[in-house]
Amino acid sequence: MTDHTVKSYDRDLEALGRRISEMGGVAEKMLSEAMEALSNLDVELAKRVVSSDPRLDALQREVEEAAIMTIARRQPLAIDLRECIAAIRISGDIERIGDLAKNIAKRTLKIATEARLPRAIVGLKSMHEIAATQLKDALDAYAERDVERARAVWENDADLDALEDSVFRDLLTFMMEDPRNISFCTHLLFCSKNLERIGDHTTNISETIVYLVTGEAMPMERPKLRPAGFAGEGEAAQ
Amino acid sequence: MTDHTVKSYDRDLEALGRRISEMGGVAEKMLSEAMEALSNLDVELAKRVVSSDPRLDALQREVEEAAIMTIARRQPLAIDLRECIAAIRISGDIERIGDLAKNIAKRTLKIATEARLPRAIVGLKSMHEIAATQLKDALDAYAERDVERARAVWENDADLDALEDSVFRDLLTFMMEDPRNISFCTHLLFCSKNLERIGDHTTNISETIVYLVTGEAMPMERPKLRPAGFAGEGEAAQ
Repeated sequence: MTDHTVKSYDRDLEALGRRISEMGGVAEKMLSEAMEALSNLDVELAKRVVSSDPRLDALQREVEEAAIMTIARRQPLAIDLRECIAAIRISGDIERIGDLAKNIAKRTLKIATEARLPRAIVGLKSMHEIAATQLKDALDAYAERDVERARAVWENDADLDALEDSVFRDLLTFMMEDPRNISFCTHLLFCSKNLERIGDHTTNISETIVYLVTGEAMPMERPKLRPAGFAGEGEAAQ
Repeated sequence: MTDHTVKSYDRDLEALGRRISEMGGVAEKMLSEAMEALSNLDVELAKRVVSSDPRLDALQREVEEAAIMTIARRQPLAIDLRECIAAIRISGDIERIGDLAKNIAKRTLKIATEARLPRAIVGLKSMHEIAATQLKDALDAYAERDVERARAVWENDADLDALEDSVFRDLLTFMMEDPRNISFCTHLLFCSKNLERIGDHTTNISETIVYLVTGEAMPMERPKLRPAGFAGEGEAAQ
């Protein structure tokens, strides 16, 4: 490649990085606002979260197209090819995280008029704290190409899974205590599942960072607190 | 491109198509076996479904890598580039469908020892019939590059969403009738959500086929039976 080509190629990669960083910011905001809307049963805020989602979808398509055009035009090898592949994968995971935050906001719209049970939301708030920290760490690890931080995110996902397990049992107990809690708690069960899956996508991002920097795939098996194959949904214990 | 290059390029695309067709077969089998395991609370069959999933994950990575290497080596334009992009997207959706079928199988492992309520599974079987037909149609539409069939799949997804809505209400009713049904029905709620999301991924496949053949994106808004923004999770009414 000539110097000129190299520079314009670097600009391509920088532009990809900027878009992904913008996506990360949008997803983080959607998640924190969705949880705030759920905690306060704030319908207006929930609607704003839902309306942010198309922006994230559009950004994801942009990243995907730009990465693929870069591959087609520049025929990159090794690390530069991995940069493009990582951009495609990470933008896909961030888009899904936004989707899951949107789902929490939509649940808020559905339960806003129902009987409230504030103690049922406590566990979800703890899950959110972990999920938000993990997401921030993964995005920072990507920005800094920090493999150790990415590995730490990967390992900490088990905490979120364990907490979902406990939230699941609590919500079932509330339902059994009083059938009037059933509808409300059912929606919270799905919110809890959404938070757990946000953790899974954050873990995917970590795996992609390790692949990007080292060229190596992480093991298929993720850290678990119980035997594989008997947990709940996805990679999570429940 | 020389004749030789063109032929070897065609072979690349054919190999991609064969792998995707294999993935489709694995996912269809996982879905039908997962539902059979759920209906009969068949633990052995459920375990077999769970153990099929790594094969699908490996195939997806293979398709993704092969498509990206084809883009990098051949610098395809227009329709040929879309073939590669479509392969990446469709293999991603099929992998997710297998994951969701696996989740149904894992739920079966969890509820196998619980109180049974056969009538609670009836609605899920109807959902499965639609989801399986939709998936078969989408895979056939991909194999035949049949845009009309792909569009029909896209439009029929609303039926699955409507049925999930009704299954959701039924399951809530069973829970309210008898608290001993709560745990069992909660797991079925997640199975129903998994079937609805299989429909979403099948719809994604249809959208990709339309993009592949026509070069045009489908509208962002999918057909719905109720106002947007107030439905349940994902694109689904609930």
